[in-house]
Amino acid sequence: MRNIRMTISYDGTAYHGFQTQPSGNTIQDQLQKAIKALTGESVQVIGSGRTDAGVHARRQVVNFLTNSSIPVDRWRQAVNSRLPDDIVVLHVDEAELSFHSRIDAKRKTYCYTIRRSCNVNVFTRQYEFHHYGALDLEAMRAALEFIRGTHDFTSFCSTRSVSKSHVRTIYDAWLEYEPDEETGPEPEGRIRIFLTGNGFLYNMVRIIVGTLIEIGEGKRKSQDMETILLSKDRKKAGPTAMAHGLCLWNVEFT
Amino acid sequence: MRNIRMTISYDGTAYHGFQTQPSGNTIQDQLQKAIKALTGESVQVIGSGRTDAGVHARRQVVNFLTNSSIPVDRWRQAVNSRLPDDIVVLHVDEAELSFHSRIDAKRKTYCYTIRRSCNVNVFTRQYEFHHYGALDLEAMRAALEFIRGTHDFTSFCSTRSVSKSHVRTIYDAWLEYEPDEETGPEPEGRIRIFLTGNGFLYNMVRIIVGTLIEIGEGKRKSQDMETILLSKDRKKAGPTAMAHGLCLWNVEFT
Repeated sequence: MRNIRMTISYDGTAYHGFQTQPSGNTIQDQLQKAIKALTGESVQVIGSGRTDAGVHARRQVVNFLTNSSIPVDRWRQAVNSRLPDDIVVLHVDEAELSFHSRIDAKRKTYCYTIRRSCNVNVFTRQYEFHHYGALDLEAMRAALEFIRGTHDFTSFCSTRSVSKSHVRTIYDAWLEYEPDEETGPEPEGRIRIFLTGNGFLYNMVRIIVGTLIEIGEGKRKSQDMETILLSKDRKKAGPTAMAHGLCLWNVEFT
Repeated sequence: MRNIRMTISYDGTAYHGFQTQPSGNTIQDQLQKAIKALTGESVQVIGSGRTDAGVHARRQVVNFLTNSSIPVDRWRQAVNSRLPDDIVVLHVDEAELSFHSRIDAKRKTYCYTIRRSCNVNVFTRQYEFHHYGALDLEAMRAALEFIRGTHDFTSFCSTRSVSKSHVRTIYDAWLEYEPDEETGPEPEGRIRIFLTGNGFLYNMVRIIVGTLIEIGEGKRKSQDMETILLSKDRKKAGPTAMAHGLCLWNVEFT
């Protein structure tokens, strides 16, 4: 028995999320189908993060147990040739049998991308949330300060969550802005919000971002982020930002 | 009667090119349908460049004659709300009645993008040609020097072309390379080939790029570009590079 670890990347647009669903058409289903086509085995692929429907991954780490004797340097191309072109295996190695992608993940980084512009960018429209009006980036940056640290994130968690504890640690939270080369009368560009933490609750990044956007629009103050956190009440936070702007950026194990 | 000029951008993946076809589903058809929905008129939209099936446009300029009295600052949003989300109107103004997008275009710039990497990038796969192996960028740059100037481009023109003259002037031709932040054992990154000219023949950019790739792979020498040009024989040039890497980058009128 071997434990194969793969770093994968996917465009989540066409899928019902990472994890197997009765309806099918998930990233996990596609990976398991490709591995079955290659080895004949029905393996269970474990992911570091169960990304929602429409959410992407730049780097997701998965693992699975197999009896196959295929050499480790053959897996990448062999699996890629059996996957649809919106899922790609970037790297493959063999892990210890005890390795578990979700349990052993120490830090995960998510990135939420907002395109602040007059017009939609047709080439990035499936990976960026389009925001038409002005956004106060400094107010959004100030609000992110309140998110750092260990908190009960109940206010930023879907009420459908089944997690026992809503306490998570955010190691880092920052905002990057890249202005467009050519812009209209209003400043246009790409805003990226990064959150690195030891774990994330159901819809947590999207609810934080939905609240940040309201802060950027001036509908709330930066300090409201703290009040919302302390209230432990989902109704106090902003809306859940759309899935297609979200991307699992990186997973770290040490 | 008014002459409305629009700068548009589109993801050409889903379309059979710019120009109306009996089979339908072209950029021109979509624009005309949106304008008809808005004004009730069946206008003829004229484009600066007749991009092929699968080819994109970052900036394409089009114009059409209309009797509509809709103010010029209302057109952009009104047309956009009637277009599919892979076509967007960036800017609208009113031109003189004599203005013609194709005839009056003085310079057009096309960009062809190659992703040189071990793995496909899932987020840009529809806009970049993926090339697995090494490419000698300096040899490709040297080859581009032979393309500059006024030449008979018969060797770089589809034999299906109906143009009377195959003489065109290339004002500028250059290659940009942006290495990836993280790369594997081989250097990985994005290669962009830009060509600015007074006009382009059928498949001209794609045949030039197909030949450049063979030069980058070491199958041909940089100087072969000159020999191929002088031969005026399509069979001497390389293959036609795939459509999805090509983008109409810009059109200039002065």
